[in-house]
Amino acid sequence: MGEAMLSDLLTEILIPVAAVIGIVFSVVQWLLVSRVKLSSDRQQPSNSGKNGYSDYLIEEEEGINDQNVVVKCAEIQNAISEGATSFLFTEYQYVGIFMIAFAVLVFLFLGSVESFSTKSQPCTYSKDKLCKPALFNAIFSTVSFLLGAITSLFSGYLGMKIATYANARTTLEARKGVGKAFITAFRSGAVMGFLLAANGLLVLYIIINLFKLYYGDDWEGLFEAITGYGLGGSSMALFGRVGGGIYTKAADVGADLVGKVERNIPEDDPRNPAVIADNVGDNVGDIAGMGSDLFGSYAESSCAALVVASISSFGINHDFTAMCFPLLISSMGIIVCLITTLFATDFFEIKAVKEIEPALKNQLIISTALMTIGIAFVSWIALPSSFTIFNFGAQKHVKNWELFFCVAIGLWAGLVIGFVTEYFTSNAYSPVQDVADSCRTGAATNVIFGLALGYKSVIIPIFAIAISIFVSFSLAAMYGIAVAALGMLSTIATGLAIDAYGPISDNAGGIAEMAGMSHRIRERTDALDAAGNTTAAIGKGFAIGSAALVSLALFGAFVSRAAISTVDVLTPKVFIGLIVGAMLPYWFSAMTMKSVGSAALKMVEEVRRQFNTIPGLMEGTTKPDYATCVKISTDASIKEMIPPGALVMLTPLIVGTFFGVETLSGVLAGALVSGVQIAISASNTGGAWDNAKKYIEAGASEHARTLGPKGSDPHKAAVIGDTIGDPLKDTSGPSLNILIKLMAVESLVFAPFFARHGGLLFKIF
Amino acid sequence: MGEAMLSDLLTEILIPVAAVIGIVFSVVQWLLVSRVKLSSDRQQPSNSGKNGYSDYLIEEEEGINDQNVVVKCAEIQNAISEGATSFLFTEYQYVGIFMIAFAVLVFLFLGSVESFSTKSQPCTYSKDKLCKPALFNAIFSTVSFLLGAITSLFSGYLGMKIATYANARTTLEARKGVGKAFITAFRSGAVMGFLLAANGLLVLYIIINLFKLYYGDDWEGLFEAITGYGLGGSSMALFGRVGGGIYTKAADVGADLVGKVERNIPEDDPRNPAVIADNVGDNVGDIAGMGSDLFGSYAESSCAALVVASISSFGINHDFTAMCFPLLISSMGIIVCLITTLFATDFFEIKAVKEIEPALKNQLIISTALMTIGIAFVSWIALPSSFTIFNFGAQKHVKNWELFFCVAIGLWAGLVIGFVTEYFTSNAYSPVQDVADSCRTGAATNVIFGLALGYKSVIIPIFAIAISIFVSFSLAAMYGIAVAALGMLSTIATGLAIDAYGPISDNAGGIAEMAGMSHRIRERTDALDAAGNTTAAIGKGFAIGSAALVSLALFGAFVSRAAISTVDVLTPKVFIGLIVGAMLPYWFSAMTMKSVGSAALKMVEEVRRQFNTIPGLMEGTTKPDYATCVKISTDASIKEMIPPGALVMLTPLIVGTFFGVETLSGVLAGALVSGVQIAISASNTGGAWDNAKKYIEAGASEHARTLGPKGSDPHKAAVIGDTIGDPLKDTSGPSLNILIKLMAVESLVFAPFFARHGGLLFKIF
Repeated sequence: MGEAMLSDLLTEILIPVAAVIGIVFSVVQWLLVSRVKLSSDRQQPSNSGKNGYSDYLIEEEEGINDQNVVVKCAEIQNAISEGATSFLFTEYQYVGIFMIAFAVLVFLFLGSVESFSTKSQPCTYSKDKLCKPALFNAIFSTVSFLLGAITSLFSGYLGMKIATYANARTTLEARKGVGKAFITAFRSGAVMGFLLAANGLLVLYIIINLFKLYYGDDWEGLFEAITGYGLGGSSMALFGRVGGGIYTKAADVGADLVGKVERNIPEDDPRNPAVIADNVGDNVGDIAGMGSDLFGSYAESSCAALVVASISSFGINHDFTAMCFPLLISSMGIIVCLITTLFATDFFEIKAVKEIEPALKNQLIISTALMTIGIAFVSWIALPSSFTIFNFGAQKHVKNWELFFCVAIGLWAGLVIGFVTEYFTSNAYSPVQDVADSCRTGAATNVIFGLALGYKSVIIPIFAIAISIFVSFSLAAMYGIAVAALGMLSTIATGLAIDAYGPISDNAGGIAEMAGMSHRIRERTDALDAAGNTTAAIGKGFAIGSAALVSLALFGAFVSRAAISTVDVLTPKVFIGLIVGAMLPYWFSAMTMKSVGSAALKMVEEVRRQFNTIPGLMEGTTKPDYATCVKISTDASIKEMIPPGALVMLTPLIVGTFFGVETLSGVLAGALVSGVQIAISASNTGGAWDNAKKYIEAGASEHARTLGPKGSDPHKAAVIGDTIGDPLKDTSGPSLNILIKLMAVESLVFAPFFARHGGLLFKIF
Repeated sequence: MGEAMLSDLLTEILIPVAAVIGIVFSVVQWLLVSRVKLSSDRQQPSNSGKNGYSDYLIEEEEGINDQNVVVKCAEIQNAISEGATSFLFTEYQYVGIFMIAFAVLVFLFLGSVESFSTKSQPCTYSKDKLCKPALFNAIFSTVSFLLGAITSLFSGYLGMKIATYANARTTLEARKGVGKAFITAFRSGAVMGFLLAANGLLVLYIIINLFKLYYGDDWEGLFEAITGYGLGGSSMALFGRVGGGIYTKAADVGADLVGKVERNIPEDDPRNPAVIADNVGDNVGDIAGMGSDLFGSYAESSCAALVVASISSFGINHDFTAMCFPLLISSMGIIVCLITTLFATDFFEIKAVKEIEPALKNQLIISTALMTIGIAFVSWIALPSSFTIFNFGAQKHVKNWELFFCVAIGLWAGLVIGFVTEYFTSNAYSPVQDVADSCRTGAATNVIFGLALGYKSVIIPIFAIAISIFVSFSLAAMYGIAVAALGMLSTIATGLAIDAYGPISDNAGGIAEMAGMSHRIRERTDALDAAGNTTAAIGKGFAIGSAALVSLALFGAFVSRAAISTVDVLTPKVFIGLIVGAMLPYWFSAMTMKSVGSAALKMVEEVRRQFNTIPGLMEGTTKPDYATCVKISTDASIKEMIPPGALVMLTPLIVGTFFGVETLSGVLAGALVSGVQIAISASNTGGAWDNAKKYIEAGASEHARTLGPKGSDPHKAAVIGDTIGDPLKDTSGPSLNILIKLMAVESLVFAPFFARHGGLLFKIF
């Protein structure tokens, strides 16, 4: 077996150091962004000329008053920021109530396992040892649930703050050139990415060390309690994604349907009453929701790995360094992403629109390549050369290089998924161009082709996931899958940076339009945004792929914890779980899509009402009533996020309590294998429609020009596709990966209760 | 244990007698339909006044020459019939080649199990007995495969012939009233329903008796060879559904996009060059394809039940009557459906449009209620009071009343699925009305609401299927599930009758339009057609529900035959199968939807070309070139049906050969649980869009009138939804249930080979 090369003390030091480096780096990036002044002073000379080409502002060229533009931008930014903050506070009030109620539930369910006894119990896996009483596990699980939830909310809030800080600055920089705007948007994304990654790691590290003070050598109980962190993170993420998703898409769809389709005014036109709500939505949905989501994935994959490790030789032998392998991988990830970021912001520079997409793609490639070396290094120093991993009742012998392969295959599978997503959603390739072409014959063929594209885009990612599962499972059982998920998420800082960059650019374009800036600025931000759509789709691909691996790992941990050794499809209990589980993503999507649809209808009515009743609105002489639209989105999202949230949160509790762990296993497996497909196809279909529309609008090729210009029949058909894609790609699709992993982590947390008291219905009959 | 009350001799007599009664009844119905003369003679007086209200022809009232109308109808009917016949012959040529090639494959794979040895082998389940050599099993399996394939093709062809015989007659009867038209369409559907049900039963009965001459007491081998019948039936159904589906929807979408959307001419307008292709399509897709499909389901569920029974006490004790329980249930089904049909055609009469849907719904209720008694009777006389059923290695004790519950729960689950489908697709209820209402804000919200409706409509059917599975599995293991599927299909004759009635009415409306008949006739056929859309959706619901049960039963039989006793999701081999299997329906749908889209694009170009280049076409003075459009649909469907067909047919062979039976089990389970959901949601979404459009067009309520009339913006949005729904509900959706059951039956047939030689890849590494 042997010992790891890295001493426990060094591990205890290295992890927080990496986290602090990440935080410092993000502060530096933030300072760089903040040098773009939003006051009425002229730009700092220190910032100009840095990219080596002559700067001039488009306004100077076109004779527009610079002062005015900056003031206007600042105003709009303020309005967006205030709207987003106020929504998040409203959302968090409701979510806070839920959080406390659910914390009570966690305590009651887990406490009741041993009838709230304060006596120590024999351990689940090592029957000869004594473990801490279930009551204390309940208390610590509840605490870590709350910490996870709060960290998740904080992550979302932070992301939103940074994004609303960056959007107007990106607009202003776009006056100097596409490269400058790109760097501002990307740096801001990096602020969010590094803060989230470092913060998640740090909190987890602190919790482990604090809990260890009580648990001492009972690592089984310690890491079981830690899984509450994942549950807390993911449950908040669910509400963030669903609530934010409904908010943003109700506003977006509503604004587009009246503005673009009926009134023929451009996107983000300040005359459109829903325009502020739309821009607020980008920040609360795509930014805050996604931040919470990826934080949740990260927390869960770490927890899944830790809980499996705790009952493997790492945990049994109390090998702290090896136990912390998941955290060390994340620490290495922060360093690797830091270097990777410099490639985009400092080592190379963007000079033209066509360089944006390759630059973002290079981020993925560079981080993956560097991280492979990083993983090899961590595996070499932090793991004993051979050890055993718990495998459903047996212990499986694993070598350190085998674990390296597990992490690496997850990482590379992520890259493959990223590239496939890019191929299917970027308008540089034939799939999106075919969809755009099908707009020739109207919206119906556009939708048919778009749906077919989404379905087709599932094939390779699923094979990539299947191969990672097979290899990592064969090498290191469920621990292998957990670390493969961690591998996919190890470059999360870079992933988040390129992911957040999209909505920031989108907002920047909106601000340019609303501030009445030159259309050439809008063209630049549109180019950034088109690349952003693709990266958003890539980010979603990562989120989904990692969610699949994470939930399988959590599922495995749940099965181990619930003490069942097989999940046999041929037993009716499991099979009905499987088929009902496969149905849940449909039920969930039905709810979320209908919510967006209904909220959008209300928005449409309000926007129409304002256009019809406010005199001078179309002429631009009167201001619309933005606040009412913001209120419609807020109310709708708060009200509508509850039923889908309840579906996801209650299903494991009901199934586990009444039908027992076998049926619950079936439900988890079914939801996983079916949800992944819908999630991938929904987000790619939506991304493709959005970019097909942008392809026609940009008119960058001979083919694209035959379909355009804006306002042509094919373009109108493309706008319809884009509108349909909105709830698919930004509400139901991305929420689905939370559905699958949240149900899994919840089952894991409640596993002791289900194993003891579950399956009431079958016990009665 | 005891003996069944029914003697073997009586069983041997009763089954063919029931089949012959079914055939005679359908001939009688056909004679009744044929009394509507398509020659230029006036109507037979014997047929008039029968429904008790005064007949007058709309033409007489409006002063149109009756002679001319009848001649025109006959001409159009001829054109449609010829088109359909010529397409089916072309399709069958290609499919015939495939059939022979695949028959060779069946022979080679199964023959190679024991290296083509002609020596008797120990039986798989009773190792102490000698069974017939594998080579002969291969030969007989091949023969039954061919017989199943030919019966399936014959079923499709027959259905098409009847439908094209009935369509113009329905049009002519519509002149007298909606009741007469309904009876003609429904009777024609019944001809098809009873012929298919009786024919399927009779051929199966004959094969069993012929094969028994060789097999003697080796019932294990006998019923293993019989499963080839199911494989043959289903593989032809796949090509029928996919080919026919692409044909009909390419024509339909193409015709609508130019005709309705661009040129603003009504549906089925004779000036539209694609109109004949569209009407031919209804007959080759919805009729011939569906006929083959349901025949396949019927054959497979019988085979699944027989093969499980053969290794249970029925087979081991050579209890022929009990063994024939599935055939006796089907025989009873024919008699019950015969009585049910009389309720629609003779006991009551339809006088108004609003009575059509209730009449069809009553068919479902009456047949289900009567059949419940029928099943109880058959279970009482044909089964010993107690017996054992093979359950993955063990024998499970079952009582005859328990088996009654298995069949009955399948039957009633079918009814539940039928009602839910009706609720979600009929424009009498709020879901479709909500979708129609969402057209106010354009096509995008229509699509969002429609997709959400489809997703939502999955919930109850899945619970119904899950409960049937749980109950029937708990009572009688896999045999219980097989007979539950059989229960759902026991009223197949009625199901097919109400299913076929839809496309016949659709065609009748088309003929009325093309023959230039009064718009009041069109209104009547439209009312028939709207009810037909709902019944078509119900029929698809049945087909999918039964497919789910059938494939699970086949899956169970496969697992038993492949000698694996658990399919553990927690093993990587199974899990990767599960996730890849869940992906297959998406891959398949991507192919079929893209095919329809591409073929429709070609059709659109051709139709546009004709409108632009043929002078006088829009004015109606020149005839369009129908033949070119027919050729486009034919070529596209023949070419495009091959890749999806290959995907479905090759997957089990590749997975089984290279990855082995465990992975194949995973693939089957994954495809089943994921495919069912997409199939249900796709066909309900499509049905809802179609009826939302009809709801607006009919303008029967205050609400509907605010959305209309034809040509209004909401109506245009509804047409777009309808067009998108076409490939969903008529191509990919219904093909998916063939996908899941065909992969299962193919795995079952090839199970001996996979069990012996499969999993090459894992053997090598």
